[in-house]
Amino acid sequence: MDIFREMAKRGHEQVIFNYDKASGLKAIIAIHDTTLGPAIGGCRMWPYENSDAALEDALRLSESMTYKAAAAGLDFGGGKTVIIGDPSSGKSEGLFRALGRFVQTLQGRVTLSEDVGTNAEDFVHTAKETPYVVGLPTAYGGSGDTRDVTALGVIIAMRAALAYRFGSPSLSGRTIAVQGLGKVGLRVVRQALSEGASVIVADINPHAVGKAVAELNVEPTDPWAILETPCDIFAPCALGNVVNEETLPRLKCAIIAGSANNQLSDASYASRLRDQNILYAPDFIVNSGGLIQVADELKGYRSDRAHHQVEAIYDTLTAIFTAADEEQLSTLDVAMRIVDERLDLLNRIRRIYRNPS
Amino acid sequence: MDIFREMAKRGHEQVIFNYDKASGLKAIIAIHDTTLGPAIGGCRMWPYENSDAALEDALRLSESMTYKAAAAGLDFGGGKTVIIGDPSSGKSEGLFRALGRFVQTLQGRVTLSEDVGTNAEDFVHTAKETPYVVGLPTAYGGSGDTRDVTALGVIIAMRAALAYRFGSPSLSGRTIAVQGLGKVGLRVVRQALSEGASVIVADINPHAVGKAVAELNVEPTDPWAILETPCDIFAPCALGNVVNEETLPRLKCAIIAGSANNQLSDASYASRLRDQNILYAPDFIVNSGGLIQVADELKGYRSDRAHHQVEAIYDTLTAIFTAADEEQLSTLDVAMRIVDERLDLLNRIRRIYRNPS
Repeated sequence: MDIFREMAKRGHEQVIFNYDKASGLKAIIAIHDTTLGPAIGGCRMWPYENSDAALEDALRLSESMTYKAAAAGLDFGGGKTVIIGDPSSGKSEGLFRALGRFVQTLQGRVTLSEDVGTNAEDFVHTAKETPYVVGLPTAYGGSGDTRDVTALGVIIAMRAALAYRFGSPSLSGRTIAVQGLGKVGLRVVRQALSEGASVIVADINPHAVGKAVAELNVEPTDPWAILETPCDIFAPCALGNVVNEETLPRLKCAIIAGSANNQLSDASYASRLRDQNILYAPDFIVNSGGLIQVADELKGYRSDRAHHQVEAIYDTLTAIFTAADEEQLSTLDVAMRIVDERLDLLNRIRRIYRNPS
Repeated sequence: MDIFREMAKRGHEQVIFNYDKASGLKAIIAIHDTTLGPAIGGCRMWPYENSDAALEDALRLSESMTYKAAAAGLDFGGGKTVIIGDPSSGKSEGLFRALGRFVQTLQGRVTLSEDVGTNAEDFVHTAKETPYVVGLPTAYGGSGDTRDVTALGVIIAMRAALAYRFGSPSLSGRTIAVQGLGKVGLRVVRQALSEGASVIVADINPHAVGKAVAELNVEPTDPWAILETPCDIFAPCALGNVVNEETLPRLKCAIIAGSANNQLSDASYASRLRDQNILYAPDFIVNSGGLIQVADELKGYRSDRAHHQVEAIYDTLTAIFTAADEEQLSTLDVAMRIVDERLDLLNRIRRIYRNPS
C-alpha cells in the first residue's frame, strides 16, 4: 500500500507508527481530520497479519470517526489507534504505558478510548502516562459505562424517526424488532417496553433470548427471521452489514434505527432503502451517545451536558430526514453532506483567520 | 516494506506520515531514538518514486543522526524528515508552513534543519508555524553559516589523528590531500596552509581547482589520482563512498579525516583500513561541527559554547583511537560502541527513575 496515496484519497492528516522495544508495542495512530478539533477514537487490539492490514483498519476507522464526531455536533476530529497483538495473551502494563507515552508525545492531538480487544482497565495503565484517555473506570475518573447513554441515543433516534414518519414521536403501540441483546440492545428493549412498544427480539445466543423472554414481555424470533418481521422499527444492535443484497428485499420495516456499527454493507444501500420507502436513521448518528459521553470527559464530565448533546440527535435526524425528502437524496448522503459542510465552513473560517486581508 | 519490521530491526520509535491537502505536502518524519533527548536532523526534499523509497531514506538517515548526535556528545536523538517533491518546482510558502504545523504537533520531539534539496530560506516559512527549526538565516535568528564550524571540526580531527599517530598535533610540515573544494573543503585547505601544511587538492570542477591554484599555495591533482597520492592525511570533503573495493588498495595515506558523509561504502572497510595501518577518523564525528552549531540554537545560540563542543572532537577521537588499538577493533566499531554504551547507560538510568525500588 502506498501510504500517501491512501492518505490523499481519504483525507488523512497524519499516520503515526509507534514502536516500543521494551514492551514490544506496535501501534498505529491514524489522525483523519482535525478541522473541528483534536482527534478522538477507540484503540483496537488485534493480531493483524502485517503492518498493512493494521494500517488499512486504522485509516478506515479513523475516517468514520471524523463523520461520527462531526455529525454528533462534537468539536472533535476522527482518530483511531490499532495495536498489533493478541488481546488474549499480548497485554501488559508496559505495553499500555508505552502506548500512553506515545499518545502523550502528541499533546492532546488524539484521545483514546476502548474498542475491540481492549477495555477500560487496560487504559488505567495508559492514563499513568497521559491524560488523553477517556472511558476509564469510574474509580479512575471516568464517566462510567456508556451503554445507558448509547441506548438513550437509540431511543431518541426512534422518536425522531417515528415523529417524521407517523406524526408522533411516541413509541407506544409501535412494533419494534431488536436484533442483539447485548448491553445496549437489552437497554433499548427495556426502555421501548416501558414506553409501551411491542418488542420482538433475536440474538445469536439462545440463552440471552430465553432470559429476555422469561423476564420481559417480549416475543422471540431468530436472528435471520427478525430481518423479515413486519414492524415499525427494525433496530440492529449487534452485527454490522445487516443490510446487504440478500436481506434488502426481505426487510418489512418502516424505519431502521439501531446501535450497530456499519449497518449497510455498502453506502449505496442507503438509496435502495429510500426506494423501498424505509426511513434509515444513519447508524453513526444513532449510536453516537457513547462517544458524546466519553468526549465530555475531556471538559470534566457533566452528565447533564452529555445528555443535552444526546438529545440533539432528535433535531439532527429530523433535519436529515427533511432534507432527504426535499432533495430526493438518501439519509446517508444528506448526513455526509452536513458533515462535509461543517468541515468546509470551519476550513474557510480557519483560512480567513490565517490570512486576514 | 513492513514498517514495523523495519522499525524493530533498526530501533525506530516513531514514523509519522504527514499529508496536507491544501499545499499537497507529503512528508515523513522518522524519529529513531530519543534516549539522549529530542530528535534533531535535516529535512530533505526529493522526488521519491513512491512512499516506500521516501520511507527507506527517512529510516536510514534518522538512524545515522542518532549516532552522529550521540558521538558528538549532544543531548539529542536522531530524527530525519523527507518531503516527497521536486525541489526545483515543488516549493511554496504553503508547503513549508504546513510542514511547520506538523512539526509543531510534536511539540519539540523533532527539530529540523536544512538538507539536500532544502535551504535556510525555505525554513523561514516553517519557522512561522513552529520554533523547532534551526539553521535559519541570521536575519531570522539563526546561528549563520555552519561551514566555518564544520571546517574547524575537521582541522581538530586532523590534529587529534596526527597527535595519536605521530606524537604531535601540529599540521606543520604534514602533507594533506583534500578531495573537494566546496565551502568546507576550501576552508580546510586555507586553515591547513595557515598552519604550515603542504596541501594537494582535487575537485571534479576544474575551475575550482584552477582558482585554488591561482590564489593559494596548493598542488593540484585529479579526483581519482588524489586517492593514491602519498600523504599524511587524506581528507575526503566531497563525495561519499570514497573508500570502496577499488580504492582501498590504492590508498597511500596514514590518516583519513574529512568532512564527507558516508566515506566508507561499507562498514566493514573500517577494519580493512585498520589492517592497512590507516588511521580512520569516523566521518560522522569529524563532520559533526555543523550539527553542534545548529543544535546549540535551541539553547539560544552561543558561539563559545558551540566551539567548546567542537573542540571536544579532539578528546573523543583520541579515546576512540586508543581503545581501537588496545582492543584490536576498528575505529568505527569503537565509535559505535561508545554511542551504544551512552544510550544503554541512559536507558538504565531512565528505568531506575521510572521504577524506583
